[in-house]
Amino acid sequence: MLYEINEKALKLESQGKKIIKLNLGDPDLATPNEIIEAAYDSMKRGKTKYSSSYGELPLREKLAEIHGVSADNVVITPGSKWGVFSTMYLLLRGGGNVIIPTPYWTAYDLIAKTLGAEVKLLKTELNDDWRIDVDKLEKLIDRNTRMIILNNPNNPTSKVLDDEVLDGVVELANKKGITILSDEVYGTISFVKTKSILDYGNNHILTTGFSKTFTMTVWRIGYVVAKKELVDRITKFNQITINNVPVFIQEAALKGLELQKQIAARIKKEYQKRARMASKQLRKAGLEFTEPEAPFYVFPRKRGLDSECFTLELLDRGVAVAPGTAFGDYREHFRISLTAPREELATALDKICEAL
Amino acid sequence: MLYEINEKALKLESQGKKIIKLNLGDPDLATPNEIIEAAYDSMKRGKTKYSSSYGELPLREKLAEIHGVSADNVVITPGSKWGVFSTMYLLLRGGGNVIIPTPYWTAYDLIAKTLGAEVKLLKTELNDDWRIDVDKLEKLIDRNTRMIILNNPNNPTSKVLDDEVLDGVVELANKKGITILSDEVYGTISFVKTKSILDYGNNHILTTGFSKTFTMTVWRIGYVVAKKELVDRITKFNQITINNVPVFIQEAALKGLELQKQIAARIKKEYQKRARMASKQLRKAGLEFTEPEAPFYVFPRKRGLDSECFTLELLDRGVAVAPGTAFGDYREHFRISLTAPREELATALDKICEAL
Repeated sequence: MLYEINEKALKLESQGKKIIKLNLGDPDLATPNEIIEAAYDSMKRGKTKYSSSYGELPLREKLAEIHGVSADNVVITPGSKWGVFSTMYLLLRGGGNVIIPTPYWTAYDLIAKTLGAEVKLLKTELNDDWRIDVDKLEKLIDRNTRMIILNNPNNPTSKVLDDEVLDGVVELANKKGITILSDEVYGTISFVKTKSILDYGNNHILTTGFSKTFTMTVWRIGYVVAKKELVDRITKFNQITINNVPVFIQEAALKGLELQKQIAARIKKEYQKRARMASKQLRKAGLEFTEPEAPFYVFPRKRGLDSECFTLELLDRGVAVAPGTAFGDYREHFRISLTAPREELATALDKICEAL
Repeated sequence: MLYEINEKALKLESQGKKIIKLNLGDPDLATPNEIIEAAYDSMKRGKTKYSSSYGELPLREKLAEIHGVSADNVVITPGSKWGVFSTMYLLLRGGGNVIIPTPYWTAYDLIAKTLGAEVKLLKTELNDDWRIDVDKLEKLIDRNTRMIILNNPNNPTSKVLDDEVLDGVVELANKKGITILSDEVYGTISFVKTKSILDYGNNHILTTGFSKTFTMTVWRIGYVVAKKELVDRITKFNQITINNVPVFIQEAALKGLELQKQIAARIKKEYQKRARMASKQLRKAGLEFTEPEAPFYVFPRKRGLDSECFTLELLDRGVAVAPGTAFGDYREHFRISLTAPREELATALDKICEAL
């Protein structure tokens, strides 16, 4: 449904219709100019040859420093999605099951299925503030459970896991010998303090990327932090699949890290404003939701809503959002990406409230 | 062994030793400046967002025009290796066998093995001019055979398949209902007329890339030409793995295609000179080989040679080549990549002849 909506939105646009696209997590801000110039400079210096499937050492060292690990624990990937896929490929291929709390990013489920792994969903609810129930999680675990996937902050709720919940999940996983894959792609720009899986040692796996923090979605660069043994296996897998991330893109990302403080602060501030604006208006319209604790989404509910019909109808009014069903069993919810300039966003919110 | 040699070469270099690296297919020439400028221009125009997992339409249309197919038959991949991997993933996952003539590019074998497919090797010999014996091929085929992989022109022999051999292979594959994956990454710059698998209609699959023709190895851009149904499946697989090739890289590749005639002619001419130079010297040294019909390799044999020992010894003399065992059962062979300026290449060839 997510892809369907997007295709329809693009089609309407190509017919000359103005569509405000709040259906994807693709920031409207431009990639900072310093990053573009760094890529250009790198290309001109002839950084256009094959390179290591681990990624460039200076970038790995910088990331290791940021995360308090060794460069041996870091492998660069073409997007955080590749980090998720390659990890799941190596750990789930050929069976077993993976537990995924919902609402969730569809890709986890699609990847598990193509690999032949069973998916066990753990539903969380708006009424519980989207808390993961650790007892329910424990009951889902069986001898074939190989992985738990966390997305923290979460897409689509923009909710950050409570410290004690995360403590509980990690403790349980450690007790049962299950690996946690923690996708923290929104972590660096969250509005509240967000604990990382790496705060619990390096038993588990962090996947993340540069897309969201540095507005580099199309550049396709992310990384995995894990035990050296898994990093080596991902690298071998890279050698027979994607080979390497272009060196000039890695050097551009390194430039981004140098400017991280100012870039992340700018992005956070802008999205906080948008989140406040959206929350105010949605609350006025009587919708239920938790306030975003990170970019880029709000995931409101309206009792009795059929979000698929609603989404399609809204598209005809010129606004694209994503139906709740794209994230699990959430027919009464829909997801708004705050990825448009505030003025456009205001117009879109008006249309959304009208349509409801 | 291929990766081992490369790691050792890089290590020696980092210790300050001068190594002439003829061990990889990584062209020494720089990416043409027009291509770099096109990428920069595209970045500055804000082409830094998510885009289609099919690839950009203008690039697909241009490639369709070149190959005489429809844009629906073209999907852009991050490197030709991803074209090979994703095709093999979709067609071989979960079993069956694949027939690969040797000498071969190691990646085919490694990919098949990680997917759980059985590999059946079909040996070709220098004495037969590296011809594929179609009768032997037929005998290898059984009810579980799902794919035949051709690499035309071949790495490491730089030999182009004879028309009648290719006719025979295609006829056999059609009769048996087996898919051919034809990796033609050296095709555009071969020195002799080279038939493409697409000359036989679109029953089969072409994988290729921009790395070799446009000296864009690190850029990671290639494509697959196949039936629409497979193109759609690869695109769906892209959506959960690599998502898209950066748009600015696709626009740079499109610029490359506009200049293809002159760029390809320049590269071909340079490598023909190098090939002639190398052939002359290797023949003088009494080595047996077929003359390259395409960039970038020569694959000579010396009776009684242990190419692994030889390769390691040669590395100590400052020249990296690849042992024949990296390409199948070819202990007496080694592969020289002609990927160094002529002067360096001459020095390296002297050292090789000395070491023998």
